[in-house]
Amino acid sequence: MHWKSSSLTVAAAGIIREQIQAYRISNEKQIVAEFVQLLSLPNHASDTPDIERNAQAIAQMLERRGVAVRLLRGPGAAPLVYGELRTPGVGLTLGLYAHYDGQPVDATQWRSPPFSPVLRDASGHAMDWQGRAHLDPEWRIYARSAGDDKAPIESAVAALDALRSAHVPLTVNVKFMFEGEEEVGSPHLEQILKQYPEVLEADAWLWCDGPVHQSGHMQLFFGSRGETDLEITVYGPARALHSGHYGNWAPNPIMLLTHLLDSMRDTDAKILIPGFYDDVRALSAAEREALANTPAADEQLKQELAIATPEGHGAALAEQILKPSMNLRGIAAGHLGPQAANVINTEASASIDFRLVPSQTPERVQAAVEQFIARQGWFIVHQTPDLATRRAHSRVIKLEWGSGYPAYRAAMDSPVALAVASTVEQAIGDRIIKVVSLGGSAPMYLFAGKRETPVIGVPIANHDNNQHAADENLRLQNLWDGIDIYAFLFSQLKND
Amino acid sequence: MHWKSSSLTVAAAGIIREQIQAYRISNEKQIVAEFVQLLSLPNHASDTPDIERNAQAIAQMLERRGVAVRLLRGPGAAPLVYGELRTPGVGLTLGLYAHYDGQPVDATQWRSPPFSPVLRDASGHAMDWQGRAHLDPEWRIYARSAGDDKAPIESAVAALDALRSAHVPLTVNVKFMFEGEEEVGSPHLEQILKQYPEVLEADAWLWCDGPVHQSGHMQLFFGSRGETDLEITVYGPARALHSGHYGNWAPNPIMLLTHLLDSMRDTDAKILIPGFYDDVRALSAAEREALANTPAADEQLKQELAIATPEGHGAALAEQILKPSMNLRGIAAGHLGPQAANVINTEASASIDFRLVPSQTPERVQAAVEQFIARQGWFIVHQTPDLATRRAHSRVIKLEWGSGYPAYRAAMDSPVALAVASTVEQAIGDRIIKVVSLGGSAPMYLFAGKRETPVIGVPIANHDNNQHAADENLRLQNLWDGIDIYAFLFSQLKND
Repeated sequence: MHWKSSSLTVAAAGIIREQIQAYRISNEKQIVAEFVQLLSLPNHASDTPDIERNAQAIAQMLERRGVAVRLLRGPGAAPLVYGELRTPGVGLTLGLYAHYDGQPVDATQWRSPPFSPVLRDASGHAMDWQGRAHLDPEWRIYARSAGDDKAPIESAVAALDALRSAHVPLTVNVKFMFEGEEEVGSPHLEQILKQYPEVLEADAWLWCDGPVHQSGHMQLFFGSRGETDLEITVYGPARALHSGHYGNWAPNPIMLLTHLLDSMRDTDAKILIPGFYDDVRALSAAEREALANTPAADEQLKQELAIATPEGHGAALAEQILKPSMNLRGIAAGHLGPQAANVINTEASASIDFRLVPSQTPERVQAAVEQFIARQGWFIVHQTPDLATRRAHSRVIKLEWGSGYPAYRAAMDSPVALAVASTVEQAIGDRIIKVVSLGGSAPMYLFAGKRETPVIGVPIANHDNNQHAADENLRLQNLWDGIDIYAFLFSQLKND
Repeated sequence: MHWKSSSLTVAAAGIIREQIQAYRISNEKQIVAEFVQLLSLPNHASDTPDIERNAQAIAQMLERRGVAVRLLRGPGAAPLVYGELRTPGVGLTLGLYAHYDGQPVDATQWRSPPFSPVLRDASGHAMDWQGRAHLDPEWRIYARSAGDDKAPIESAVAALDALRSAHVPLTVNVKFMFEGEEEVGSPHLEQILKQYPEVLEADAWLWCDGPVHQSGHMQLFFGSRGETDLEITVYGPARALHSGHYGNWAPNPIMLLTHLLDSMRDTDAKILIPGFYDDVRALSAAEREALANTPAADEQLKQELAIATPEGHGAALAEQILKPSMNLRGIAAGHLGPQAANVINTEASASIDFRLVPSQTPERVQAAVEQFIARQGWFIVHQTPDLATRRAHSRVIKLEWGSGYPAYRAAMDSPVALAVASTVEQAIGDRIIKVVSLGGSAPMYLFAGKRETPVIGVPIANHDNNQHAADENLRLQNLWDGIDIYAFLFSQLKND
């Protein structure tokens, strides 16, 4: 099978784009209202009733567009919302993946509650958008998952509405796959997909997650990093001790922890664990070329993020995210400031996310980390140790690994890759950036599977959407762009 | 003036002790009730109304015993409760210092609320003590400041009651000085004492703070360490960033912080900051002898505290606390466990308490620390930096120093030192341990002053009182011992 995008002339593409945009312009407030309703649903993967409400809401959104929906379930898993929209006489099948769960929220850090969506203008003022005749495309919707990753869900269903309204027929059968536990490492996805292998059958999958390029240009990504998470706890005395009466003698768990962490990674991003980089595959020629053609936003980002000197000894961001990484995401022991007591604490903990690249595996990375720690004289446990264990061993460390998965990379020069790229360029009327791999992690490898189905990333969120952090937001223009892109992909891809 | 303790024979000391104890045994429940009332008052130094209530309550406790009380005040300071009890025809004046403020509490860590005192037996069961005929001396009172440092206040006033009841006359004028902000570093004490220099005039000061020896034996201490506190904050990107999209490039503030901390101190208590030990004075012959005679509780403590290998390469605890120390008391950035988000955080903070020994000063220690940090390429600020500062400098660090003060050591072989030691031995009918210095910090140096008045530590709290931590407690027998000791010191010290 050979793919191509519809051989539209530039003028014809413009006419279709205008039809789609005309529908959107007439229906902006309805689209935003539907999106706001979806964003109002708290969606941390571990809150089962919340997640169920999200799945039901999305199922209804799809069914309203004539999509046949099933909720695929596994033991202890969030429902995987699966939908099919078949078009008679169409031979190609395109899958669209997104996720509807969100990162945990620390509501104290948000300007407005994370599940009470607010539209704000560029100055941050809340907008009474329902009373406006027109929505400024620079306004942003603030809510958890506005950017990561409910935006593609809303854009995709609005794209179906736009195509129907414009009487543009679909050229592909569409499969929708909306996951409910991506942000906790997709712990059940593999098992559910093994139960329902037929749902993966497609000619290509679109991976709709992540942000557009920092320059504002649309990008496609042809891979993602894998990941594995680690929670570390080290121990001091059995009870908190007065630092004056016991300091210099009772082991200080914060010092033990900082010493260990400093031995694992330097302050310039290099991981110091022997063997950590052993399985890293060199870039292919096509990947090297794509990297060379990726525009650098580094100087703009340094200003925007108040970073005088990035990590990596001057290497570009685009290059740095193609390497494995070790990110310290949390550390805690005792108290700070007015709450600080002069004690030696009983324990200190840190939380790490490792990002993997081809051909690393979570298993081999975990083994390298544990071996490195053991060689430093630590006694490793995987459950909270009792006092007898702490009496018996000088340095006891608890390591708790989260579930992990490997990285993925699609060929950048395959027919499907070229067809998808050309269709997205038609949709937005501009060149796009082809990115070797998303820096973020996504279980794309599962969708490629043994059939090696191409999986291509089509992100739509603004790069500064604060995903994973407080005040997450989506710029309206990015929601509108998503509608154009998905509408073109549903209606302009063809096979020879 | 030459001091001696009353030349009591062992038999005569026993008779006085029996009289004092007879009073106590008949009045245990009234003593505990008064103590419980005092412990019910929240007493963090920064809570001004709370601290005022404590000062008023203590003033009333003293006035009920005929002590002339004044609340000495300075701008922004907790009241210094000062009392005088003069006895006609008596030439010696003995001062007694304690503090009534407490460390901050994290109530979630306590078995019962920190300001709702509960009596528990050795198994931890709450006791309905008001309904009992007799109070077991092994029971403990659980409340913030039960051990540190309201116990001496209660013991001292009960000692006055016991002497009066037994018709034993006081041989010294007594000055009481109860401070309300010791736990926040006594920031105003020096200023207030400068305003009222006459209150310091005494022949000796008793410093009633800290625990007895870990072996359970009474101890006197002849000095204390100084201290200075430091809050450190280092910075990452201006907003929290997705660790996949920006990791390896955006500076990770936790790594910057752990790297810095690890360069400041090793995991065996040694401070690595050049010059930090320069001002440390060697021990005197008397101090070396006292150290050699201090019984080691190290093996017992290792069991009790589940410490397999202490810091300090095998040096004894008693020796380690005579050295300066750097204690990491808190560290925080991001989140852990289920709340951990895959982000690069905007900042990371740590809290340190340094303990000083003669002849270090806070000023010179602070200068050595700042010089060390600056030489590593950090740009030091003392206020929260703006984004322009963070854009301009690769490594920006905020250092916030608390107020600090120097260490103190009294001569261990002076007449007053010998007289106090012998009187305490008579009170408890046992040998006592003479300790070179408390490991803890206390502004004893202020009471010595230019007159070099001897200041001697007379602690009464059990060593395992959990001071500064959750479930702070006082063993009843330690409260009873305190009554005996203060009663003897008030009635048996004489000058030649």
